[in-house]
Amino acid sequence: MELSSIIHSANKRYAYALDKDTFLIRIRTKKDDLTKVILHYQDKYLTTLKIDTRKEIEMVKYASDGISDYYEITLNFHLVCLRYFFELVASDETYYFGNERFFKNPIEDIDYMFDLPQTLREEEMYIVPSWAKNKIIYQIFPSRFSSSVDVSEEIWYKAPIGHMDNIGGNLRGIIDRLDHMKELNIDVIYMTPIFKSPSSHKYDIVDYYTIDPSFGSKEDLIELVDKAHKLGIKIVLDGVFNHTSRDFFAFKDIRENEEKSKYLDWYYIDSFPLIMEWGKKPNFKCFSYFCGMPKLREDNPSVRRYFIDVAKYWIKEAKIDGWRLDVADEIAHSFWREFRSEIKKEFPDTLIIGEVWHYADDFLDGDEWDTVMNYDFFFAVRGLLKEERSTVTEFYQELSRIKGKVHYRVYPLLWNLLDSHDTERFYNGINYDKRKMKLAAAFQLLSPGMPLIYYGDEYGMHGGGDPDSRRGMYWDKKYQDLELYDWYRNLISVRKTHEGILDYTDLDVQTDDVTGLLRIEKKDYVILYNTKDSEIFIDELKLKMELITGAISDGYMEGYSVFVYKK
Amino acid sequence: MELSSIIHSANKRYAYALDKDTFLIRIRTKKDDLTKVILHYQDKYLTTLKIDTRKEIEMVKYASDGISDYYEITLNFHLVCLRYFFELVASDETYYFGNERFFKNPIEDIDYMFDLPQTLREEEMYIVPSWAKNKIIYQIFPSRFSSSVDVSEEIWYKAPIGHMDNIGGNLRGIIDRLDHMKELNIDVIYMTPIFKSPSSHKYDIVDYYTIDPSFGSKEDLIELVDKAHKLGIKIVLDGVFNHTSRDFFAFKDIRENEEKSKYLDWYYIDSFPLIMEWGKKPNFKCFSYFCGMPKLREDNPSVRRYFIDVAKYWIKEAKIDGWRLDVADEIAHSFWREFRSEIKKEFPDTLIIGEVWHYADDFLDGDEWDTVMNYDFFFAVRGLLKEERSTVTEFYQELSRIKGKVHYRVYPLLWNLLDSHDTERFYNGINYDKRKMKLAAAFQLLSPGMPLIYYGDEYGMHGGGDPDSRRGMYWDKKYQDLELYDWYRNLISVRKTHEGILDYTDLDVQTDDVTGLLRIEKKDYVILYNTKDSEIFIDELKLKMELITGAISDGYMEGYSVFVYKK
Repeated sequence: MELSSIIHSANKRYAYALDKDTFLIRIRTKKDDLTKVILHYQDKYLTTLKIDTRKEIEMVKYASDGISDYYEITLNFHLVCLRYFFELVASDETYYFGNERFFKNPIEDIDYMFDLPQTLREEEMYIVPSWAKNKIIYQIFPSRFSSSVDVSEEIWYKAPIGHMDNIGGNLRGIIDRLDHMKELNIDVIYMTPIFKSPSSHKYDIVDYYTIDPSFGSKEDLIELVDKAHKLGIKIVLDGVFNHTSRDFFAFKDIRENEEKSKYLDWYYIDSFPLIMEWGKKPNFKCFSYFCGMPKLREDNPSVRRYFIDVAKYWIKEAKIDGWRLDVADEIAHSFWREFRSEIKKEFPDTLIIGEVWHYADDFLDGDEWDTVMNYDFFFAVRGLLKEERSTVTEFYQELSRIKGKVHYRVYPLLWNLLDSHDTERFYNGINYDKRKMKLAAAFQLLSPGMPLIYYGDEYGMHGGGDPDSRRGMYWDKKYQDLELYDWYRNLISVRKTHEGILDYTDLDVQTDDVTGLLRIEKKDYVILYNTKDSEIFIDELKLKMELITGAISDGYMEGYSVFVYKK
Repeated sequence: MELSSIIHSANKRYAYALDKDTFLIRIRTKKDDLTKVILHYQDKYLTTLKIDTRKEIEMVKYASDGISDYYEITLNFHLVCLRYFFELVASDETYYFGNERFFKNPIEDIDYMFDLPQTLREEEMYIVPSWAKNKIIYQIFPSRFSSSVDVSEEIWYKAPIGHMDNIGGNLRGIIDRLDHMKELNIDVIYMTPIFKSPSSHKYDIVDYYTIDPSFGSKEDLIELVDKAHKLGIKIVLDGVFNHTSRDFFAFKDIRENEEKSKYLDWYYIDSFPLIMEWGKKPNFKCFSYFCGMPKLREDNPSVRRYFIDVAKYWIKEAKIDGWRLDVADEIAHSFWREFRSEIKKEFPDTLIIGEVWHYADDFLDGDEWDTVMNYDFFFAVRGLLKEERSTVTEFYQELSRIKGKVHYRVYPLLWNLLDSHDTERFYNGINYDKRKMKLAAAFQLLSPGMPLIYYGDEYGMHGGGDPDSRRGMYWDKKYQDLELYDWYRNLISVRKTHEGILDYTDLDVQTDDVTGLLRIEKKDYVILYNTKDSEIFIDELKLKMELITGAISDGYMEGYSVFVYKK
């Protein structure tokens, strides 16, 4: 048995409350190393009253990636503390694992068991907004999405795209297009920043309390949220709390008063005079050395106060439903704890989403964010269909690693994306192979989580890396790929009609690296993905009712296709 | 290569700031699996300015236990974020590890590297009181340590010991015995609780603002701290914030007013009338189902406020130097974060020590405690000398596991104990084998960390499990084992004269499970431990200057002995 691969600690990552008196215990082991894992548990203290509470239960393998298996079990109890240890069974040997130690015999000494303090875990319970589970998000880049005034075709579709060009997109334009979102049947609109800023992306904010004049007014935002709500659509804004514009009042004060500024401790200034010349390394910390985006010092309580107030203000004033947090992993955990605590106290239904491109780790322990932009999903799909670095087995394992590691409550809230304003369009990455695009959309929309559709992907929009992926939305029918649009609508309809498709327990998964077939059998549904260019013969297809086409007659699945049936 | 054993995440457990601009990166691997680990790193964002900052450095294996190796490296930089990945080299293959993924080729795509945000880690820096490193603690159980009034020999040494019997020990008695602590040359006195309580242990506190009358007054405590400080001795008190006495005002109010009490939300009450009969399971949460110790609800802000104020009050009023926290692992992390934040803001030199019997994990991430009562040390020494479940190799590996896992700043602050008021005396556990006792004391006092000497161990006091281990201190010379006392004084003198003995970098360690020899070679010193009953011939001993005897002539070490020399 590979003992060095056994990962469990009695911390909130591996042993936590799901509800009052319901607890989940997880453990990670080397892939295919064990035949079963049994949890032995007992009340920590009832021995004091000479009561024997010992029990055991077999754990369930809920995920498996390329190198690890993940086991879990749910327990119900109402007590002060639980003691427990694991019985790790391999074909040739058994170990008992408690309090970070391995033993050859069942553990009798309570000091060598793990401890799970119930009240501690109850207080730390990871509570996420119940509305968010599996909801579909539509991402809008407001300066390029829709304009309420006439913009020439030349400008809207063909103007060179720089970071400073606003071409007319505004909030009123979005209001005018709510019918599009409704027809597509999405649940949430996420807009990149809309506050006053000189750029088109508005990640360099001058005034957090003012809607950028080119986008409209506070009243426009209120109207947009109100009308969206009436259509059953939620609105998430983009919170840029890592850095400001250099024209933000506090940094402006520093530029003017240098050492004498009372906002010196709002930023990280190394020396004066400030170096703010493009192409030179600034002598103050910035986001990515962009001198136009000086980094805030979030360990300063005044800074925290200011930006938490901003976040609350817009929830209160405009009734927005969530904050997506920009560059969130470069901001201190202590800031996010305070942020969550204050926001959730007043507005428990507000969804908090961090932007982080790698495994979100400590940020997803229940006291900071609700979920993340799931770039792990992005990397997995790209690895399969763009980079082609993964076999279909490796692809599924990458997805499973996320399931194995992320908190039980967070998994159905992950923002699964194929692209965003920060990346090239997925369609570009795969050289406009429509079958691959449809297959990728199917991975997004037939999986649990919150799929994030980047505006225009549903029409087959083109665009290279930032800023080219931020082109004017294809409203003109001559640019729209309606076959793709129908595909998105069909997938969304299937997703919403057949909730069982999103079930992620008791999966029977088979992958075939030769044909590229991924077969996922759930309680009531079977999903087949052909992840390669060649057709695959699948005997069972001849018999089954199709939900989504993608198969040709007589059981052949064409290249890069998907097929779903109800059992 | 065993990939499933590679443990690293870009979180504050594995990548943290030691000082501003100095960072430590750690990784865990399967024992003896790799020949070297190289860290590749670069500025995350300087590519923006077309500057190539790529570097690489070989990591150092700083610990190794029975199943894992632990590597670390220190880096200096001043930037926004670091990107990095590991080159994992085994004899037959090499892998590259970044962003939770393994690759066969060096990682070029920055998205597949790990991210270390500098400012985030700076803000989270684990700062511990500089005075505490390697200091020696002496634990006093005040009701049994020393009395300022005459207590008959019959009562002091021979009275049956129950939890409710105070036999005269008091603060004035401790003041009178400060010369003992000075002679022994300890640095810190830790006293179990001294506040108003019906029991002798005083873990059921009725009034946190009053010294128990049998122990003395607030003025006595102030005098004790003052006189200790003049002798260079710090004072740590015991903070019981997990539960109170049932006569504490808030619980008393609940007993009297039941559902109508305004303190209902200070505790976990299931129903009324309260069941408070000994031997029955209470219908409210308690410490260990002891109905005399109802558990506090620390997610209640009023409860937090109350007890943080208590903690501050005694630091302010009596100038105490630290709080040892009782049952600290059953109290919410959010409580401890607030506790630390408030205490350290006003009193940064206050030492915060948690009581936890297992691996302290999340509690030792820099924002809760400074250190713990290191029961892992206790288990390791008992495993070797009492239970005899461990070989000397396994013993050393248990100690190394702690070194491998615990934060760099915490390691020299761990409270290494052999016994406490909660356990039997170590001397009892080993059937009063004086050679084993001396050897165990040597493990404590010749190792880095904060050795915790339980009162009377230095005189060979006897005592079984709680409460028998709380006997009246052996002040009468006829009970004192002066050979042991000299041994303790000698060890402490050696520890304090030769600081290099506590060095824990670049160790060359050899263990021999046949003879039981443990040989630890440091930069300037060699320590030899004979952990078995039989003598061992050690050639080098014939040549070396002895610091501590324990060897007989001609290179023979007697059973259970220790030998130290300067190179």
